[in-house]
Amino acid sequence: MNIAIVGASGAVGQELLKVLDRQDFPVSSLRLFGSNRSAGRKYSYRGSDIEVELLGADRNAFRGIDVAFVSAGASTSREYADMITAHGTVMIDNSSAFRMDRDVPLVVPEVNPQDAFNAPRNIIANPNCTTIQMVVALNPIHRLSPVRRVHVATYQAASGAGAAAMDELVQQHRDLAAGREAVVERFAHQLAYNVIPHIDIFGQDDYTKEELKMHFETKKIMHAPELEVSATCVRVPVMRAHSEAIWVSTERHVSVDEAREAFAAAPGVVLADDIANNVYPMPLELAGCDPVYVGRIRRDLADPNGLNFWCVSDQIRKGAALNAVQIARLLNK
Amino acid sequence: MNIAIVGASGAVGQELLKVLDRQDFPVSSLRLFGSNRSAGRKYSYRGSDIEVELLGADRNAFRGIDVAFVSAGASTSREYADMITAHGTVMIDNSSAFRMDRDVPLVVPEVNPQDAFNAPRNIIANPNCTTIQMVVALNPIHRLSPVRRVHVATYQAASGAGAAAMDELVQQHRDLAAGREAVVERFAHQLAYNVIPHIDIFGQDDYTKEELKMHFETKKIMHAPELEVSATCVRVPVMRAHSEAIWVSTERHVSVDEAREAFAAAPGVVLADDIANNVYPMPLELAGCDPVYVGRIRRDLADPNGLNFWCVSDQIRKGAALNAVQIARLLNK
Repeated sequence: MNIAIVGASGAVGQELLKVLDRQDFPVSSLRLFGSNRSAGRKYSYRGSDIEVELLGADRNAFRGIDVAFVSAGASTSREYADMITAHGTVMIDNSSAFRMDRDVPLVVPEVNPQDAFNAPRNIIANPNCTTIQMVVALNPIHRLSPVRRVHVATYQAASGAGAAAMDELVQQHRDLAAGREAVVERFAHQLAYNVIPHIDIFGQDDYTKEELKMHFETKKIMHAPELEVSATCVRVPVMRAHSEAIWVSTERHVSVDEAREAFAAAPGVVLADDIANNVYPMPLELAGCDPVYVGRIRRDLADPNGLNFWCVSDQIRKGAALNAVQIARLLNK
Repeated sequence: MNIAIVGASGAVGQELLKVLDRQDFPVSSLRLFGSNRSAGRKYSYRGSDIEVELLGADRNAFRGIDVAFVSAGASTSREYADMITAHGTVMIDNSSAFRMDRDVPLVVPEVNPQDAFNAPRNIIANPNCTTIQMVVALNPIHRLSPVRRVHVATYQAASGAGAAAMDELVQQHRDLAAGREAVVERFAHQLAYNVIPHIDIFGQDDYTKEELKMHFETKKIMHAPELEVSATCVRVPVMRAHSEAIWVSTERHVSVDEAREAFAAAPGVVLADDIANNVYPMPLELAGCDPVYVGRIRRDLADPNGLNFWCVSDQIRKGAALNAVQIARLLNK
């Protein structure tokens, strides 16, 4: 396949380069695009240096490209979608720009692969990171009995705010360790030694957009309009992997043993639930890993039809780059 | 009142000294007790140095003491309870040793002050930190309509594991900033740049004891045997204040406006919910503060009778020392 990455210098763009390299993905050609700031930079891929081209400089640049991975923010996606898809290129978009559009499928390959083949605008949206890992974990339960209600509290890494935000967290800790003041630029408040219950801007019902994404994207991906999600999204001083405390309520009772078996058999899920040996998923250990890890599986003490579990996955990997590449693989089949 | 502190050198013991000093509490005399490790140390209180006495050296040491604050772990509490209370001293115990005993009241003064006056064994238990802040916040909702179901995910500070654990977190960050390996002794895993879904040992239904405390202690304090709590308790790299993402389901629908008014009027609660100005409670800002802070109040998108909010309080202050002193104040009235 002839591939392009738009937003090549960003955290997700860089991860796409890694995933495409490692995954033995059939890449015939690779082109990189970016803004004024990154155009001209070179990145190495399978032994050759590829220069970042300025997005928009050539309106026909995407002719002949099969798949463009676009990860440069919602406004860039909106501005360049027509240009990118004009000659039949499939745009796999990592931004929130088109996720809820009726004629744009929102795809997590473990959950709704068939939707990738119904993309009349040649745009396929990659869901938000917090949603991706949650639906991969919800899906095996949903197949046992329809999930009706989800409560989820997130513990989100700095990576979700981009590469500069990750650097800021490290710098805050360096400054504090040296007795200096921590500098705050990328987050609303100091993140070192803190947790911040505020990700993205505020929207409907005083939920943040990040929380509303978990609500609306989950319904769409799982084709379950009656599945209601209430989320509280919180930034924590962790680098790359997101954690989620999840309670699900199902139509009929699902036992812990049934759930455990379903998780163990589910594609993309790794069961890490051996409390006798202090084994449960933790973000520090799972940075850079592909799967969605599930542990701490318990019956919900407050709901006879409820289950409670803990879920961790790398935000840049499965939460963005890997999921996009998996979508491209579906198309290649 | 003649006061004693048992476990004077610990994080809670030290905070008791501060709270008793600051709060214009009627202290006629103050004696400090501790283990072999801390006996002989001196701490200053209202201008004089008080030496820590070895607990157990004099079996009659508590004669004439009105209230003993005991915070030296469950086994010390069990071992010395009879000795401490033998001459009429009221033991306000910060450990889990007696909390669920039928003849020991478990008291949060904002919620069940009357229970403090029914202590046949002269023991009053201070609840676990995570429970204290949650019930202070649940109580005003419960008075509007009985709370039936609570889901809670915690973001717990290092302080809950003691002073040495707080030092370890700081040292981990110093070592990592200097390019050295982080040393792990007090926690099961590295806490810096991590979150750990495991506090206290595992118990019934694979919940941790920390999580089960929130379940059982809440029922007892609120006199609500039908109120069911399902908790996931998580350690985060924060120093002192605990945060909690809480969903409550009430018997009848309680609106966000009703809840907000009730929180604003509730003793011990400070409403910090002004999202237009990025105001919500955060642990970094609230270390060393007395109240329980509530913000991010929303209707529960997954439950028509549900509410969702965020609650932060200093774990050593209201979560331990302040609550104990408030109990002593009740008795003094």
